[in-house]
Amino acid sequence: MSINAVVWNENVHETHNKIVGDLYPKGIHGAIAGALNAAGGISATTATLQDDEHGLPAERLAKTDVLLWWGHAAHGDVEDAVVERVAEAVWAGMGLIVLHSGHFSKIFKRLMGTPCNLTWREAGERERLWVTSRNHPITAGLPDHFELENEEMYGEPFGIPEPLETVFISWFQGGEVFRSGATWRRGAGNVFYFRPGHETYPTYFDANVQQVLANAVRWAHNPAARITDVTDAPNIPVERACEPITARGAKLHTDGEDGFR
Amino acid sequence: MSINAVVWNENVHETHNKIVGDLYPKGIHGAIAGALNAAGGISATTATLQDDEHGLPAERLAKTDVLLWWGHAAHGDVEDAVVERVAEAVWAGMGLIVLHSGHFSKIFKRLMGTPCNLTWREAGERERLWVTSRNHPITAGLPDHFELENEEMYGEPFGIPEPLETVFISWFQGGEVFRSGATWRRGAGNVFYFRPGHETYPTYFDANVQQVLANAVRWAHNPAARITDVTDAPNIPVERACEPITARGAKLHTDGEDGFR
Amino acid sequence: MSINAVVWNENVHETHNKIVGDLYPKGIHGAIAGALNAAGGISATTATLQDDEHGLPAERLAKTDVLLWWGHAAHGDVEDAVVERVAEAVWAGMGLIVLHSGHFSKIFKRLMGTPCNLTWREAGERERLWVTSRNHPITAGLPDHFELENEEMYGEPFGIPEPLETVFISWFQGGEVFRSGATWRRGAGNVFYFRPGHETYPTYFDANVQQVLANAVRWAHNPAARITDVTDAPNIPVERACEPITARGAKLHTDGEDGFR
Amino acid sequence: MSINAVVWNENVHETHNKIVGDLYPKGIHGAIAGALNAAGGISATTATLQDDEHGLPAERLAKTDVLLWWGHAAHGDVEDAVVERVAEAVWAGMGLIVLHSGHFSKIFKRLMGTPCNLTWREAGERERLWVTSRNHPITAGLPDHFELENEEMYGEPFGIPEPLETVFISWFQGGEVFRSGATWRRGAGNVFYFRPGHETYPTYFDANVQQVLANAVRWAHNPAARITDVTDAPNIPVERACEPITARGAKLHTDGEDGFR
Repeated sequence: MSINAVVWNENVHETHNKIVGDLYPKGIHGAIAGALNAAGGISATTATLQDDEHGLPAERLAKTDVLLWWGHAAHGDVEDAVVERVAEAVWAGMGLIVLHSGHFSKIFKRLMGTPCNLTWREAGERERLWVTSRNHPITAGLPDHFELENEEMYGEPFGIPEPLETVFISWFQGGEVFRSGATWRRGAGNVFYFRPGHETYPTYFDANVQQVLANAVRWAHNPAARITDVTDAPNIPVERACEPITARGAKLHTDGEDGFR
Repeated sequence: MSINAVVWNENVHETHNKIVGDLYPKGIHGAIAGALNAAGGISATTATLQDDEHGLPAERLAKTDVLLWWGHAAHGDVEDAVVERVAEAVWAGMGLIVLHSGHFSKIFKRLMGTPCNLTWREAGERERLWVTSRNHPITAGLPDHFELENEEMYGEPFGIPEPLETVFISWFQGGEVFRSGATWRRGAGNVFYFRPGHETYPTYFDANVQQVLANAVRWAHNPAARITDVTDAPNIPVERACEPITARGAKLHTDGEDGFR
Repeated sequence: MSINAVVWNENVHETHNKIVGDLYPKGIHGAIAGALNAAGGISATTATLQDDEHGLPAERLAKTDVLLWWGHAAHGDVEDAVVERVAEAVWAGMGLIVLHSGHFSKIFKRLMGTPCNLTWREAGERERLWVTSRNHPITAGLPDHFELENEEMYGEPFGIPEPLETVFISWFQGGEVFRSGATWRRGAGNVFYFRPGHETYPTYFDANVQQVLANAVRWAHNPAARITDVTDAPNIPVERACEPITARGAKLHTDGEDGFR
Repeated sequence: MSINAVVWNENVHETHNKIVGDLYPKGIHGAIAGALNAAGGISATTATLQDDEHGLPAERLAKTDVLLWWGHAAHGDVEDAVVERVAEAVWAGMGLIVLHSGHFSKIFKRLMGTPCNLTWREAGERERLWVTSRNHPITAGLPDHFELENEEMYGEPFGIPEPLETVFISWFQGGEVFRSGATWRRGAGNVFYFRPGHETYPTYFDANVQQVLANAVRWAHNPAARITDVTDAPNIPVERACEPITARGAKLHTDGEDGFR
């Protein structure tokens, strides 16, 4: 049974900028979905900012194993309710892969709890990604390093929480470095950030990049049934305690009432 | 030079519930500030929900080394703008200690990026806290374990990101366990969550609890000057690159313009 | 294709102690291998201290996807050469699951770099394991907590490095807690420690324990080809540098020579 | 009261190689100790391989707050008993700072539990270290990045366990990257690895490097009293259990006897 991946893209540059439109005639989302569908074992569809509910209604998220997210110019246009819905889906077990300028997306900042800022330069310089965690599932089939001849530079310090694992670190021609591949777990959801992917370069047609994305989808997929009560804080009454106890002392709450939130 | 600590409390139960009011006549904030001031090397003041800007205007936060946060019934009444201001202060280097029911505070959920939920029971049962990180600064002067005869139970699973370090784990009489002391770093700010402190019990008068809080203030204090541009994402133009490079390829941005956010 | 698991046991108590021998007539290794073989997708065999090379010659380790390790009375009898061979296999990608009193095995201490000590009591008391990482692969099919009516107690502080993820925490009837399930990565190898399993109790016949072990084998399995040069530190000569550089300054080494170790 | 630092050096190249001898007339250990003593609040002495017990008898380690370690050509000549003694001191609370080629020292490999290997090139190329954890204590007083015009290259993948925190990442002129500053905790001891310091370059006279080392000594210092029973695994008899319990079930051990190791 294949993994259901949804590639979300704001889809703005493709329709407003001729360079990007010519480079990605099916959109960045279309290019990525095409690569994932060709990788085997993954069934990828797309969603964009312009779709109703940004293409991410609750019933679709419920069936999405892994969501990929590309945004840049229109982070502010993403509705907060959809961001919260995606966050809850991640906590409940949906995988999330945040791409490139998605570092400043509402959903990434929401899940990290940090500014997610960095330094940057758009100069088409050479980027070389080094694997820092040998034989990590996300590096399957990759050499120890690979190059992208033209990329935007992102530089440290990168305003993220310490990753669970650092998988790639990039070298840039202009002298910077960057933690280009990093993982976190948020609730039952696996989160991966992958740096490359500036819209004016053909990054998403690169074979190594496509390999990383397919690997990451497989890694992020949590096959467990989605958690349904993901933000609940259940009261465990005295009579249902694992060990027999007797209530003592002063109480603020009456039995069985909901806690404050 | 002493560490400036501010003890924030929603101060609701103290004024609305006779049990709590009698137990903490100066408020939970007053009890904690008193203990910190007696500990040596710490200068503690208080702030409450009812104060103007909740007692946390920008100029006060700028001088606060470590903020302690107690809330329960009124999490929803804390203004989002103040929450965001506190988050930025943490990223810039202010320490934050979140207490007990503060697990559901806006600021803790904001910095964790997770639901921060748990199970609970108000039965005045025995809690025993075990040190899991020997000689961690937060455990200075403490035995390997200590007890609170009456406490509210909080049980796992606790909906937090994997901590940087787990410092305390609690045993409860009714059969549950809980990661009662855990650390994270968010930007330049040290964050510590400490579980005990239900408002109907004299927890904040316990000598071991007071020791933990004083230790935690010292641990959370980052003496470095506060970061001023904590969410900035500066452009590094080609001519200021560390290594000489020439711009190549298609560009979306004109030189020196701000990036999208 | 099934996962090749090898269950290693020192196999001492089974042959020297009537209680243990009667409880585990096929040995602890036999009981565990039986459970794994019944779980589906796993092909489990056994090895013991008494076998030639402790049953772990290089060619067998090369084909072992995941090794499980139970030892207690005879840690000191395990040959250092075999320990080092197992360590290299782990770094190269073999999974390792260390069981109960294996906390003091040479291989666990070797991979952790810490004392791996704890407190203990053999009183047949109740243990309750709580899941702390919801829907972690190692918890598949398990409830939020499960009990073992009779177990040895292990208590914190547990002398381990901070885990990558804490998956289970135990509550003990006598008042202690313990991080009973924890993960690390060492090189390309996934390592899991699982606490229960005292030899005088029927722990390895418990359905939940068997579920954890099967889950852990699947989680620890790294399908990537084993790394062959796992301790090499290759010299990258100037003429093979990714970027053109010219050697400068004083040199200690001549070109292409091996580094010091 | 100042922090007692001991700078350990194998002191081989200085006496066998004219370039190194001329560059470091007081030895690398002398240069580092000099810088630490000039930094304020640190009292640094030195020890070398050639000293009796390598200059690290038990009574000296007991009074050492932080040990710095430089080795390269003679890792194999360090006695195992001294390595184990140092490991125990770290677990008990002594800080340890491992420098440059010390990545292959017995003590670093012992504490990491991994191969600690890397790629390398001695070409006097430019290294630029980027701070990845803003305002971390180890970065106090440093700019966001600094350069060493001539250094040996160390490249990823670096065979270490995932660090607690990654503090520096290096960019190399020849195209590689490296996690040049990383922290771990082992028992009560803080461990920091710092990459630069090839013996044929004047790295330890660089002001930024000296600042890092002084910062690291202050960060690694654990002021708590040294743990005395750091590898003990105490039995807690039934009658001393925190909660009243009665022993049940079959027993392997008689009361109060030592556990197996």
